[in-house]
Amino acid sequence: MSKSVKIVLCGLGNVGKALLELLAERSGEVESRYGLHLILSAAVDIGGAAVGNDEGLPTAKLLEHLKAGGAVESFSPFGQPGKTGKEVIDEAATDVLLETTPTTLVDGEPGRTHIFAALEQGMDVVSANKGPIVLFYQELHELARQKGCGIHISAATAAALPTLDVGQVCLAGATLLEIEGILNGSTNYILTRMQQDGSDYEVALKEAQELGIAETDPRLDVEGRDTANKIVLIANRLFGLSLGPKDISVEGITHVTPEDVAEARDAGQVIKLIGTAKRTDKGVQLSVGPKRLDQTHPLASVSGSEKAISYLTDTMHRITVSGGKSSPVGAAAAMLKDLINAF
Amino acid sequence: MSKSVKIVLCGLGNVGKALLELLAERSGEVESRYGLHLILSAAVDIGGAAVGNDEGLPTAKLLEHLKAGGAVESFSPFGQPGKTGKEVIDEAATDVLLETTPTTLVDGEPGRTHIFAALEQGMDVVSANKGPIVLFYQELHELARQKGCGIHISAATAAALPTLDVGQVCLAGATLLEIEGILNGSTNYILTRMQQDGSDYEVALKEAQELGIAETDPRLDVEGRDTANKIVLIANRLFGLSLGPKDISVEGITHVTPEDVAEARDAGQVIKLIGTAKRTDKGVQLSVGPKRLDQTHPLASVSGSEKAISYLTDTMHRITVSGGKSSPVGAAAAMLKDLINAF
Repeated sequence: MSKSVKIVLCGLGNVGKALLELLAERSGEVESRYGLHLILSAAVDIGGAAVGNDEGLPTAKLLEHLKAGGAVESFSPFGQPGKTGKEVIDEAATDVLLETTPTTLVDGEPGRTHIFAALEQGMDVVSANKGPIVLFYQELHELARQKGCGIHISAATAAALPTLDVGQVCLAGATLLEIEGILNGSTNYILTRMQQDGSDYEVALKEAQELGIAETDPRLDVEGRDTANKIVLIANRLFGLSLGPKDISVEGITHVTPEDVAEARDAGQVIKLIGTAKRTDKGVQLSVGPKRLDQTHPLASVSGSEKAISYLTDTMHRITVSGGKSSPVGAAAAMLKDLINAF
Repeated sequence: MSKSVKIVLCGLGNVGKALLELLAERSGEVESRYGLHLILSAAVDIGGAAVGNDEGLPTAKLLEHLKAGGAVESFSPFGQPGKTGKEVIDEAATDVLLETTPTTLVDGEPGRTHIFAALEQGMDVVSANKGPIVLFYQELHELARQKGCGIHISAATAAALPTLDVGQVCLAGATLLEIEGILNGSTNYILTRMQQDGSDYEVALKEAQELGIAETDPRLDVEGRDTANKIVLIANRLFGLSLGPKDISVEGITHVTPEDVAEARDAGQVIKLIGTAKRTDKGVQLSVGPKRLDQTHPLASVSGSEKAISYLTDTMHRITVSGGKSSPVGAAAAMLKDLINAF
């Protein structure tokens, strides 16, 4: 007997569309392998929503409609122009919100409204959107606890690279001493290029932008804030903290010079942008900054736009995970994973 | 409210003792973090057993008794000389068997008897003992299915290096295309030394034996059988197969020469003993053998006695996990992890 899981998907950008594609392609497989009958009850974007009947929306047809340039609210006969995510969440009796609206670190909207509304309804939340989770971690966590719901954020914490589930499942029972992560692909690409060629930071950044690895506005990445947000979320979950983006000292890579890179190389080291959370006598200390790593450090060989995370524990010693596709498909796959593991 | 979990521990060698130590040290923490109240109902070794009352055995005192050279059956007032594991399992109403008796690939005894008896009683099984699981995978799996019990074998599949839980939890929803693993520490140590120094196989083996990294009788490792057993167990679980030790082509490292290593190095490659399970048009193909890897392969930088596993998937691309303590404590920690995740 399969268990039905009714879904509201908010956000139909690249990640939302990739997720819709996974839902369209693999629902049968998810049902046979995991016993979950996934029903897309509604999909919402900036101009409105499509709300399905009891069997949900026809995902393949919706995808076709969107790929042909149609808006979700014009998807006949389900489209409802002007219908908001909050309205959909409040009205439909569903099990889980998949939140993929654009992230903002100003007020976390519109994801913030969606996530609070979903938790109020007793829904689980799977979010690729970092903003509201980082900004309102404590309130969201408390509300989820009261309502007995889960907030699942693999996609917001390095996407297809497994971070939280390794820390929670694979290291269960061990005491976590330190987490170190290369959690941002574009900065690792830039540092790798500086290392390989002796390039200037500006040259390497420009190359990364031309390749689409770095954003046109790269500040969130190169100033270390993206890494900081991820390590805050990971540390909150794995050390049981409630820290926000201001509780961490952050240094980016904009001041790293070819001379720094050469000096490190002469000492047999590489410079990497590392997010760290370390258990100390004074509590867990968080930081982000360029660090010189010995060649034998398990993060030293993580190059290009690849990401990795390394956990130091007492009983299992050090465990390092690397890889995972950095792409909308990778993020969508991480959300599908969370959805499967949550039910 | 905590959930009580009654345990029978079979085998008090190095892993069994390390596990007893974890139970003695961390029961309070396991209860507060995971809501599990662990009760050691009985402990069994070759000469007999100690069987506790309703509150179970006093783990710290039992550990002290064993460390002072006492046998479990002489642990007053709980000791019962001659009492077998099967008798204990049949008589006590417990929830889980922790099986750490010595592994044998001849008949899998005495672990085989313990595991079948536990499943018959409807108990979950956490086993560090590979022998019976590899030899009787299909029968055990079928019996566990009938009885609704789990067989948890992290400790038998590379111990503290997480393999199965990464494949099952972290990659949920993705399609696994290929698994490649460096799953045996002593052979990786030998190949690393041959790589570093141009040493002969025999010289490197002797060094590994002197350091306690390789066994006095190293055949199971160097002939590739240990790696084969692990990749069979991992592939059975993750691809849903029921293969045995004869269903895999196995080549060890005994014929690898310094010339082979030098030739690989000249081509920018390293030789590693790799266990592979690959999805093909003809089903999943398994093999073990020395393989030349490019330096960019994520397993190429796994050196010394370290282990690692790399998963290639469709939606998340490649994810590699490395590290994990190779020691009785590491194996015991993997068993505690399985125990926590099972309940």
